[in-house]
Amino acid sequence: VPVRYVIGPEGSVDASDRGLAYGDGLFETMAVSKGAIRRLDYHLDRLRAGCARLALPLPDTAELASRVATVAAGIGHGYVKLILTRGAGARGYTPPPDPVPTVIISAGESPAAPSELRLATLRLRLGENAKLAGIKHLCRLEQVLGRVELESLDADEGLMLSTSGAVIGGTSRNLFAVCGRRLVTPELSRAGIEGVMRRSVLEASARLGIEAEAARLAPTDLVAADELFMTNALVGIQSVRRLDQTAFASRAMAARLRAALGLDDDA
Amino acid sequence: VPVRYVIGPEGSVDASDRGLAYGDGLFETMAVSKGAIRRLDYHLDRLRAGCARLALPLPDTAELASRVATVAAGIGHGYVKLILTRGAGARGYTPPPDPVPTVIISAGESPAAPSELRLATLRLRLGENAKLAGIKHLCRLEQVLGRVELESLDADEGLMLSTSGAVIGGTSRNLFAVCGRRLVTPELSRAGIEGVMRRSVLEASARLGIEAEAARLAPTDLVAADELFMTNALVGIQSVRRLDQTAFASRAMAARLRAALGLDDDA
Repeated sequence: VPVRYVIGPEGSVDASDRGLAYGDGLFETMAVSKGAIRRLDYHLDRLRAGCARLALPLPDTAELASRVATVAAGIGHGYVKLILTRGAGARGYTPPPDPVPTVIISAGESPAAPSELRLATLRLRLGENAKLAGIKHLCRLEQVLGRVELESLDADEGLMLSTSGAVIGGTSRNLFAVCGRRLVTPELSRAGIEGVMRRSVLEASARLGIEAEAARLAPTDLVAADELFMTNALVGIQSVRRLDQTAFASRAMAARLRAALGLDDDA
Repeated sequence: VPVRYVIGPEGSVDASDRGLAYGDGLFETMAVSKGAIRRLDYHLDRLRAGCARLALPLPDTAELASRVATVAAGIGHGYVKLILTRGAGARGYTPPPDPVPTVIISAGESPAAPSELRLATLRLRLGENAKLAGIKHLCRLEQVLGRVELESLDADEGLMLSTSGAVIGGTSRNLFAVCGRRLVTPELSRAGIEGVMRRSVLEASARLGIEAEAARLAPTDLVAADELFMTNALVGIQSVRRLDQTAFASRAMAARLRAALGLDDDA
């Protein structure tokens, strides 16, 4: 697959790029610690899955990994962001027969994140589309508008439900609920993004013998939970201190998983 | 509102533009006939409504109109496309406090369009989101994937339903059904785009004394209809010759509305 690479913040993209015109592409935001990308293989797995779903050519992953590593080398504690689009194209939704994908790589330092979150339920609902659920595509206006709504609330993150009333997650984090001895995270077959840290937590749970599953959750299930925490590739695992008017005292499962994943060493 | 203008196909956009990163913006594709934009006021109305919905600053519309007119002057029979984004920004969904919108204006000639359409129902469903319905925002992966599905079918346009089973329209056209003496078009409060030509048809119907309404339509309502036609700002009004296995003989309402709107003179 021929690819057009755009590196760095001074880069520019063709005004006819389909990523801009139609959100026709994918992205990955990867944690960098001491110049190295964390969980690169998981990010590439999700990118591959997204390409298959969108019928988008996947660039050579060895070259992607090499380019990303070069950019990451200059970063102490931060992120590398990769955008992959279907490239330039004529007007119209129909993809060009032989697209030349655009890959944009940028990077930056990350500010310190709060260790605990105040979570507020947003009024904005997420549309449901099985074909777009799970992957990290570029059509993110729902998350942008979720963040706009959050700015008027006294909270760090917004809880988003789907139109059918299922809990999906935060605007930029996945959610886990501890219900007795079970760990439950929303199933994301109709909305949401399957986060890299979510996958790591599910895999760590299996290693530790913790019963974990992805299932449909209602808001009342969260209020009844013993502990809530949220995950994101950049910030790792963050405990939820309160959801709307409900306070949560337990931090045990979050601490155990953070230790198992070596996240305290990353920061 | 300060604005960054990008004119023409050789233009380029900052790699950090939020239109590219998150689909955070709007667009309008306007018909040009003999160097003049058709229905510019309707396009600006929809752009204004979209800005209000997305909390996006609306650039000075007199300047927008002037810039668009300059680009249109060189076009015989074609289009001018305007993209408005929230401009460059730091990483993260939260909009910058003082965005400088990007406006990208491009143009081209239009190929001749078929006067009649073969329509096929797509399997892909449209997600429902009241906050994003009606406006012409940049998150268009559903339409792109609809077009990808259409390529495997023997048809000119794909009929898209929403996840709750309501008829919404084509991948790039609104739909009208003639049911006896009534004209019905899908109501678009949860999905779809309120097309400029759809608005023109509804207004022309009122002038002509034709009973017209926007209502929820099921696929069975279409099969039972006397006539179907589709609308789009560039191609005007096109009759539907068949929907899946159902043929439609009547072209009377489409012809009457095309004449009332002077569309035959545009081409």
